[in-house]
Amino acid sequence: MNHVKITELRKWMAQKQVDLAYICDPKHIAYFSGYESDPHERVLALFIPLEQDPFLFTPALEVEDAQNSTWSFDVRGYLDSENPWEIIGKEIHTRYGQPGTIGIEKNVLTIDRFDAISNGLIGTDSFIDLTAIIQRLQLIKTQEEKEQLLAAGKWADIAFEIGFQAVKEGMTEQAIIAEIEYQLKKQGVSQMSFDTLVLAGKNAASPHGTPGNTQIAPNELVLFDLGVVWNGYCSDATRTIAYKKPTAFQEKIYQITLEAQQTAQAAVRPGITAAELDQIARKVISSYGYGEYFNHRLGHGIGTTVHEFPSLVEGNDLVIEEGMCFSLEPGIYIPEQVGVRIEDCVYVTKDGCLALTNTPKELIILN
Amino acid sequence: MNHVKITELRKWMAQKQVDLAYICDPKHIAYFSGYESDPHERVLALFIPLEQDPFLFTPALEVEDAQNSTWSFDVRGYLDSENPWEIIGKEIHTRYGQPGTIGIEKNVLTIDRFDAISNGLIGTDSFIDLTAIIQRLQLIKTQEEKEQLLAAGKWADIAFEIGFQAVKEGMTEQAIIAEIEYQLKKQGVSQMSFDTLVLAGKNAASPHGTPGNTQIAPNELVLFDLGVVWNGYCSDATRTIAYKKPTAFQEKIYQITLEAQQTAQAAVRPGITAAELDQIARKVISSYGYGEYFNHRLGHGIGTTVHEFPSLVEGNDLVIEEGMCFSLEPGIYIPEQVGVRIEDCVYVTKDGCLALTNTPKELIILN
Repeated sequence: MNHVKITELRKWMAQKQVDLAYICDPKHIAYFSGYESDPHERVLALFIPLEQDPFLFTPALEVEDAQNSTWSFDVRGYLDSENPWEIIGKEIHTRYGQPGTIGIEKNVLTIDRFDAISNGLIGTDSFIDLTAIIQRLQLIKTQEEKEQLLAAGKWADIAFEIGFQAVKEGMTEQAIIAEIEYQLKKQGVSQMSFDTLVLAGKNAASPHGTPGNTQIAPNELVLFDLGVVWNGYCSDATRTIAYKKPTAFQEKIYQITLEAQQTAQAAVRPGITAAELDQIARKVISSYGYGEYFNHRLGHGIGTTVHEFPSLVEGNDLVIEEGMCFSLEPGIYIPEQVGVRIEDCVYVTKDGCLALTNTPKELIILN
Repeated sequence: MNHVKITELRKWMAQKQVDLAYICDPKHIAYFSGYESDPHERVLALFIPLEQDPFLFTPALEVEDAQNSTWSFDVRGYLDSENPWEIIGKEIHTRYGQPGTIGIEKNVLTIDRFDAISNGLIGTDSFIDLTAIIQRLQLIKTQEEKEQLLAAGKWADIAFEIGFQAVKEGMTEQAIIAEIEYQLKKQGVSQMSFDTLVLAGKNAASPHGTPGNTQIAPNELVLFDLGVVWNGYCSDATRTIAYKKPTAFQEKIYQITLEAQQTAQAAVRPGITAAELDQIARKVISSYGYGEYFNHRLGHGIGTTVHEFPSLVEGNDLVIEEGMCFSLEPGIYIPEQVGVRIEDCVYVTKDGCLALTNTPKELIILN
């Protein structure tokens, strides 16, 4: 349970005269309450009033788990046969009276659920968006969060080691993924932060390609994009390696991508903007004539979710501050030919940044 | 790409005078278009007008994959640096003119995205909810879908076999999960349909418990809840087994759960309602005095998602029809003591049902 962040949220609520915050994103509920769950289509909610005790609202079958988590306030359950919105309406009125303004997550709350709560149940039609304040709270990581992110990063480094060792001629992408996840799970990592990507040869030329039965072949590149969830925090890193001697063209594309990644990483410091970082990496790639093949933003924030605020993209003038964490992941994807991406997530320090993953970035050639 | 279901959707649109359907759920986009993707926070959308050609809207970095999928119409990409909503507004007007009524998925579309499209971009304020019609389309499975669900079910049976073989004294829940997923991945299953659950002893008494380092111990029950995604279709099944001789109480709870499951499964046929099926299973458990420990609905629909329409729950008077697929999964969870759940998904036939998984349900005692 994150007392510090609940207090910060309440400070904002006081300024904006918000009586009650309704958190509906399971990942944000976990962030504030310490209780992690995927409720599927059932309703999971966290209600944080300005001053009184908050409460968690969960499906009946999760009440015990929620009580056994680090959450130290009330947990109210509902049965599948009950109408959760009616119960929520009653609970709010019983506990807090009639709230004036309610904060909601407009970037997560669906229209039908908003209709359900605003339909007379809550008795107010004054709503304010919590999206920006929650993004802001998650943006600057505490020291404890930094340690968790470093720990998650170490597991990504271990994952690369396992993956590189599994590369052999004829191994399929899927078999290598199976090997990585098996070894990690045996060592206690229960969850990957997204579906592991291992893309061989031309498959790597699609930035979000799907791994399958393509076999590792000599003189080709293999792209690994992976991360784990460790104590609720995510890692995310990408390496591209060569299986046996790469062609001169593959090597060239690799070196350009590496230069872009390293130049951007060296430029990270408080005061620079998100768009400037994106531009720095893009400029390197464009200067070699491959700008059109770097068809995505430079990076994204990371924390309890694998993609969060900030977005390192053209037009985002957000000023980088100490404590932010984000990925730097330029890539060059030339359809049917070659695909390279190199990615580390970094933690912004007082005068630079600290990488959360440390697998070498010079081109590794496996034999 | 599912021509049949697009045609059925259009028939409904014609009846309701809907000019354009905006599909935003990635799973539903995959269902209609054949293109599967998890766009994270990026925008993925499928626009189906009443008569003209539909188009897919994807992040730029997915355009190639989308074109290589079974989708045979246009794919329009957008760059991270562009405003997707502006492009969507322009594309709609260029392609289809000014739509009168637009169908949206109120159970998936978030408030901020609804604001983005309704904010002058689309030029109409007439919206209709697509939730019910899409649920209805997905509710009745085609023969082809039935075959896919049976294939996914076979993989769940194989997963149980692997899991049961891995049960040994001292093995942790996580290690057994690692073994199951490793063997499946090596055989070509790239995705589980949800996080595999292996819960030993008292952990199984929490219906949605989290597997961890608890070790298998003699004279305890072990609960397996798992499923795979195979060709886009999900399986979901649960078995509870005993490691060495169970206590008389464990055996008793098991037999009650089994009786509830089998009684419900034997009652499935067109004409019965969802609520009646729930009641049939609940009555068995209540008759033995354990009704309060069966604290969730009997089941949920399954198809391209692991939880979909219909819900087998008190109050749902939906009449069961041939072609529906859903889980039957009664459980008894007595905190700190014992937890048992037994689950098969079934396909409703003309006069009964066909189980999608076939691992034996009599209590298996491993030694």
